[in-house]
Amino acid sequence: MAHETGLLTWPGDDRAGESFSDAALLAAMVEVEAAWLDALLTTRVAPAEARAGVAALVGAVQPGDVDDVARASEAGGNPVIPLVALLRDRLGDTHFVAAQWIHRGLTSQDVLDCALVLCSRAALAQVRGELVAQLRALARLADAHRGTLMVARTLTQHAVPTTFGAKAATWARGLLDAVADIDALTYRAQFGGAAGTLAGTVELARHAPAGNGNDDAVTVAQDVAARTSRTLGLAACPPWHTDRAPLTRIGDTLVRCTDAWGRIANDVLTLSRPEIGELGEAADAGRGGSSTMPHKANPVLSVLLRRAALAAPSLAATLHVASAEAVDERPDGAWHVEWATLQTLARRTVVAASQAGELLAGLRVDGERMRATLAWALPDVLAEQQSLAALTGATTGDDPAGYLGANDALIDDVIAQIAAVTGGGGVNTGADR
Amino acid sequence: MAHETGLLTWPGDDRAGESFSDAALLAAMVEVEAAWLDALLTTRVAPAEARAGVAALVGAVQPGDVDDVARASEAGGNPVIPLVALLRDRLGDTHFVAAQWIHRGLTSQDVLDCALVLCSRAALAQVRGELVAQLRALARLADAHRGTLMVARTLTQHAVPTTFGAKAATWARGLLDAVADIDALTYRAQFGGAAGTLAGTVELARHAPAGNGNDDAVTVAQDVAARTSRTLGLAACPPWHTDRAPLTRIGDTLVRCTDAWGRIANDVLTLSRPEIGELGEAADAGRGGSSTMPHKANPVLSVLLRRAALAAPSLAATLHVASAEAVDERPDGAWHVEWATLQTLARRTVVAASQAGELLAGLRVDGERMRATLAWALPDVLAEQQSLAALTGATTGDDPAGYLGANDALIDDVIAQIAAVTGGGGVNTGADR
Amino acid sequence: MAHETGLLTWPGDDRAGESFSDAALLAAMVEVEAAWLDALLTTRVAPAEARAGVAALVGAVQPGDVDDVARASEAGGNPVIPLVALLRDRLGDTHFVAAQWIHRGLTSQDVLDCALVLCSRAALAQVRGELVAQLRALARLADAHRGTLMVARTLTQHAVPTTFGAKAATWARGLLDAVADIDALTYRAQFGGAAGTLAGTVELARHAPAGNGNDDAVTVAQDVAARTSRTLGLAACPPWHTDRAPLTRIGDTLVRCTDAWGRIANDVLTLSRPEIGELGEAADAGRGGSSTMPHKANPVLSVLLRRAALAAPSLAATLHVASAEAVDERPDGAWHVEWATLQTLARRTVVAASQAGELLAGLRVDGERMRATLAWALPDVLAEQQSLAALTGATTGDDPAGYLGANDALIDDVIAQIAAVTGGGGVNTGADR
Amino acid sequence: MAHETGLLTWPGDDRAGESFSDAALLAAMVEVEAAWLDALLTTRVAPAEARAGVAALVGAVQPGDVDDVARASEAGGNPVIPLVALLRDRLGDTHFVAAQWIHRGLTSQDVLDCALVLCSRAALAQVRGELVAQLRALARLADAHRGTLMVARTLTQHAVPTTFGAKAATWARGLLDAVADIDALTYRAQFGGAAGTLAGTVELARHAPAGNGNDDAVTVAQDVAARTSRTLGLAACPPWHTDRAPLTRIGDTLVRCTDAWGRIANDVLTLSRPEIGELGEAADAGRGGSSTMPHKANPVLSVLLRRAALAAPSLAATLHVASAEAVDERPDGAWHVEWATLQTLARRTVVAASQAGELLAGLRVDGERMRATLAWALPDVLAEQQSLAALTGATTGDDPAGYLGANDALIDDVIAQIAAVTGGGGVNTGADR
Repeated sequence: MAHETGLLTWPGDDRAGESFSDAALLAAMVEVEAAWLDALLTTRVAPAEARAGVAALVGAVQPGDVDDVARASEAGGNPVIPLVALLRDRLGDTHFVAAQWIHRGLTSQDVLDCALVLCSRAALAQVRGELVAQLRALARLADAHRGTLMVARTLTQHAVPTTFGAKAATWARGLLDAVADIDALTYRAQFGGAAGTLAGTVELARHAPAGNGNDDAVTVAQDVAARTSRTLGLAACPPWHTDRAPLTRIGDTLVRCTDAWGRIANDVLTLSRPEIGELGEAADAGRGGSSTMPHKANPVLSVLLRRAALAAPSLAATLHVASAEAVDERPDGAWHVEWATLQTLARRTVVAASQAGELLAGLRVDGERMRATLAWALPDVLAEQQSLAALTGATTGDDPAGYLGANDALIDDVIAQIAAVTGGGGVNTGADR
Repeated sequence: MAHETGLLTWPGDDRAGESFSDAALLAAMVEVEAAWLDALLTTRVAPAEARAGVAALVGAVQPGDVDDVARASEAGGNPVIPLVALLRDRLGDTHFVAAQWIHRGLTSQDVLDCALVLCSRAALAQVRGELVAQLRALARLADAHRGTLMVARTLTQHAVPTTFGAKAATWARGLLDAVADIDALTYRAQFGGAAGTLAGTVELARHAPAGNGNDDAVTVAQDVAARTSRTLGLAACPPWHTDRAPLTRIGDTLVRCTDAWGRIANDVLTLSRPEIGELGEAADAGRGGSSTMPHKANPVLSVLLRRAALAAPSLAATLHVASAEAVDERPDGAWHVEWATLQTLARRTVVAASQAGELLAGLRVDGERMRATLAWALPDVLAEQQSLAALTGATTGDDPAGYLGANDALIDDVIAQIAAVTGGGGVNTGADR
Repeated sequence: MAHETGLLTWPGDDRAGESFSDAALLAAMVEVEAAWLDALLTTRVAPAEARAGVAALVGAVQPGDVDDVARASEAGGNPVIPLVALLRDRLGDTHFVAAQWIHRGLTSQDVLDCALVLCSRAALAQVRGELVAQLRALARLADAHRGTLMVARTLTQHAVPTTFGAKAATWARGLLDAVADIDALTYRAQFGGAAGTLAGTVELARHAPAGNGNDDAVTVAQDVAARTSRTLGLAACPPWHTDRAPLTRIGDTLVRCTDAWGRIANDVLTLSRPEIGELGEAADAGRGGSSTMPHKANPVLSVLLRRAALAAPSLAATLHVASAEAVDERPDGAWHVEWATLQTLARRTVVAASQAGELLAGLRVDGERMRATLAWALPDVLAEQQSLAALTGATTGDDPAGYLGANDALIDDVIAQIAAVTGGGGVNTGADR
Repeated sequence: MAHETGLLTWPGDDRAGESFSDAALLAAMVEVEAAWLDALLTTRVAPAEARAGVAALVGAVQPGDVDDVARASEAGGNPVIPLVALLRDRLGDTHFVAAQWIHRGLTSQDVLDCALVLCSRAALAQVRGELVAQLRALARLADAHRGTLMVARTLTQHAVPTTFGAKAATWARGLLDAVADIDALTYRAQFGGAAGTLAGTVELARHAPAGNGNDDAVTVAQDVAARTSRTLGLAACPPWHTDRAPLTRIGDTLVRCTDAWGRIANDVLTLSRPEIGELGEAADAGRGGSSTMPHKANPVLSVLLRRAALAAPSLAATLHVASAEAVDERPDGAWHVEWATLQTLARRTVVAASQAGELLAGLRVDGERMRATLAWALPDVLAEQQSLAALTGATTGDDPAGYLGANDALIDDVIAQIAAVTGGGGVNTGADR
């Protein structure tokens, strides 16, 4: 589908189609409207005649409607206004009462914020799934390469010996932090009505047959919001029209994912330079060709991951500026800037997740080359050891394997952490070492 | 067409379709390939049999190919590789020799950089056209409202008297700076081959019938680049594969446009608050409706302009990070991050240009309200005047019209500057005042 | 002290002096070195003769040393190298053995990262203290102004009725989210040695009288790290030299604080415009004067908060770029860019915390003016109510107090949340309403 | 002096002391006040008795006053208010009339904006001087290494042959673009008074003995502004209190400098990796030591340049956000955020300029290593040549020197451009090759 792919931009965007495409977002908005109408019915705020309309709502709008809704969005400044009009139009003939009751009590921001959160959650679920697979791959790499000696590099220069297993463990720690950040997120429903007071819903509840007086109506209105939240699987909470931490937390978490992959990609880019040659992207993937140089095998996945990592921080920063500018009861532009920014950030992260998974699954580790570099780096890489030994009056040998510190214990620790996250099943904890 | 509109993101994106859509970019890349092949032929580097292929090239690819090229881009990390394959495939049967000679001497970055510059130029031409119309509108507003007294506000508080004409002049100065920045841009062709040495083209020239020896081949290769640049209307220059100032200058210029509109939009948003009510967006545009409040007339154009202005700086910052990271002879991700960033920035700027034009053309100025606010702000807004007069031993009146400083001269100055930019025809320089 | 104040930059920076000034950072680095040496002694890795040096270390360096250490930092690219040299020099005569054992097993990044975390924690403790006081103030405002009717504004325009109590509750929710983010942070110790393997400490432990063989030495080295972490009150954990989530989480949290204050400041700036006049900064604070207009009373605290909020997101973005670029075993510039960025961000946040506290403590609420604006906005602000009532066949009155939705319940909720955070003692939960 | 050095942040900051330190900025503000008072006197707006005060003004404030002014700045939100009070106080006894006339007609923003521009100009003059020296060094490198064969790298992989001379020419092009950007800047004076109308000065001129009537007073006021501009060496122009392009242009230009150095530093960091070893920082500079590894020689200058380049884009983005938010006649926070941002950006750029100069002056080029890598990369690096030759039916040799394209011509071109910028004197254009 057209919207899922941009020419220059993010090859692979179609992988993100399921979670945060324009079509997915449109569907999510409809899902919110349907869940709300359903709750109005369940609480008997809306008349029972509208019941059949709920089922009709779902599916009333199709991906093919995206362009029309988009074009009609500019007049009111957001896509909810034309979407509601379209839904009412589509349901009007057959479900007149339901059509009248669509969106009652809500404001545009309720619908769009809920949809943004739903799509973010779906995107992050995809990302988390990829992260878990990547962690399993890294646990295997860390364990398999406990004994694969290589030189540790600091400020680009040879420092001391280490192992590739330890490097893989370091990469894994970044991904573990990303998973922890994802798991710490709460996905909040947004139901506040025109100004975050729920006044519209309270008004409707007050006039409903079931309603009897002001206090009750408030309870009923909050119940409508709570039920809709439950239907959508979102956390019921007070309105956050101008408290945008729920979105900046999502944005920052997405960036922590691209940070972690970017860090890995940069290592692969460095270590797959021909002069170093210790790592390489999978050769058989049909990737990495050049438009003019027949011999080239470019580390394309790492290049694309680095691209994602360089662009993401600025997008998250825009979400923060928007958050600080969220004035009044609903803001004048600061809300609007969040949408494309978050969508772009989330979709790129989903794409990067998939590319990172492919990168790690196919990573080639050249232990021979690592060992050769380390041998070449002797005796300098043992200079620290010698200077420390001298302090104690001891002498040391010249075997870099004798200066690996706590690497094994650090690898054990990360494998245990990965097992805790992944359920352990897929992690070979090194029984055969 | 689908790609021209994003659901949530940038209503109005289809206005940007002509200049920097995916289809426009694809066409620009083909234009570059065609111009290059033509130059190879003109210089007799390519064999004359390929001549007919040039015409065939133009039009060999259609907007409908965008998705396929996009999907195929990920393998090599850029869209030029599948585009060249597609072009060779399409021309292969009927224009075998031309198909063979497509892209010879070029690298992917040559084609894509040229296309990015071509599309940026087209976008900026659209933007400049809008700016000129806006400047004409502002010249009229500045002149017509020389006598429209209003209170000047600093740090949100009432300061001293001014006129709306003076405010319009201030807005215009921002746009004049933006026009000056656009006019200062050079659009550079990019022809360097695999590593910026033009070696491929020199090699081809060396073997061409017309070529005779190394030195000559260099001259011929540079001639190919110069001719192609001329055909495309771009500045011939040495390769800039890793000197990205040509792109960051474009990016920074785009942001200076959104800065200038953002500044105007923020004023309109403030001054169209009901409590102030001195400015308003056009009421008859069918804009500004709410999804739930029938009485609302939101300043939607200003909201959308503010949105564009808040998002743009981060995008330009990403271009700068990419520029600083442009390592080796062609970079490993830093180049790739520029594409979507620049495209998004340019397209949003084109959309914003159009919205700013609509905003200024329909702006409602409530001189009565301005005058009333100023009267209400007396005598405080003359406190500075009194304190200065006291210094000289003079006394002052209580007419705010007596404390307008050099406003008229400042307005004359800006009208003259606008006339110089717009050709003057459309500027009413106030003969009738 | 000179370093605590910048001329133009952040008036009030001296409030941040305690937590993250240059002097505080220098002291923190010394604290880390002392704690490490102490742990080396406790574990009998270092010889007992060095014991007396631990006490001497503390206090060996003074704020007056900041400039010398700073100047000497450029040669090695970080301040730890000259600091260690200075410490060894100062202890050399009287504590020769201790001087020899300073910094053994550590790398510069261990010391500086720990110090950055210690100073960040101190800064965030200051910030949290301010936030708690602000939340108490907001609980009081929310409760006291349950009945203070005002117009709710969306996209700058009058929308429906609300109360100032509800607005204060909204502000409070932003601060509650910031407190939750602070409380979710872990402050990680950094002890990895030259390349994150702890090899240096393992080597020392191996040669120590207490050490007996390789496995034991690893345990001892990890014990040294764990003890030092405990002494510093930091979380013991594997090295994170190239996994920078511990720092980006701090950075993002700092920005969420400035986001929350920026949102409040922007509301105050809007609502203290003379034409609106519903809020005002404290008049008696000696703040807000103008250099030329004697009558001006500028909302200076809000202006300064807005300043902080506009600058913070970019700084956090820089931390993320650095995180993604953290290559090798210790990075080549990406680490170095974090220091000033984090310090600046933290110190500005501390200053802003104090300014936000002052703003809220002195906030003037003009209930009369709010009520007048709302009255003026009738009947439009009840248009939504009427359209909803019409849907149910009901009629409504024209009293805006009848369309406040769930405001009271929402205020109760936020007051309860504040009580949970602040211990409740200072929160008047509205018994007297 | 204390303010010139930050502990962690920017070793070498004291090099920036002359141009944009706090003391320099304070002095620049005094310079502006003095020049303005002088112009008031020359135009006979201020009484002749104030004449002697002009000389007294200069020098009335010392670097030691920075802290007091800074602390007093928070109350009014900017440093001009306490500075004017201090100046009046210091001159009060001996130059009573002058003290009264200081700052008359100006607003805080006039003084601070002028001072920011003056300090920016001074910083950019330092930077330009460094750039010229760097360009001379690069011209020498490009010329001396025309024949130093090396492998060109694209997307980290070996591509085709090139020369180090060609790489140096590429670096130089980035610096030439930076110089061109600096030379394109205009440094604008800012004189608008309280609201950009010059009303205060017009008022004073109206009451001056020389003034006679409104029109004349305007001319006199503009003359005061023009004369002061001339004294300061700044461009006379209409007020730009809310048109911030004059500052964003400076900010963007500063970033283009750090972009250009960052690009060079990244190349040096890559090519001085031990496995590549083709470039190295000067070994004898006493730089690059490690706190624990005696053998290390870190590429510290490149690390510090990379740091500057990674941080700069975000700062320039903040200036753009501020520009877009410059509302009213003078803005409420957007102005305030510019100060520290611009100062930090400018000072870091000055420091980076000096580090880049040192890097290039001492750069070690290992031609043997370059040649060896290239030999090792054969025959792949000639694969493109062969495929192109095959197209023409020709055959090629296996000497990489035969596939250098237009390198020599490109080097000649850049040397000529450098000569045009530097005056040519210092450029050895390769007579001895």
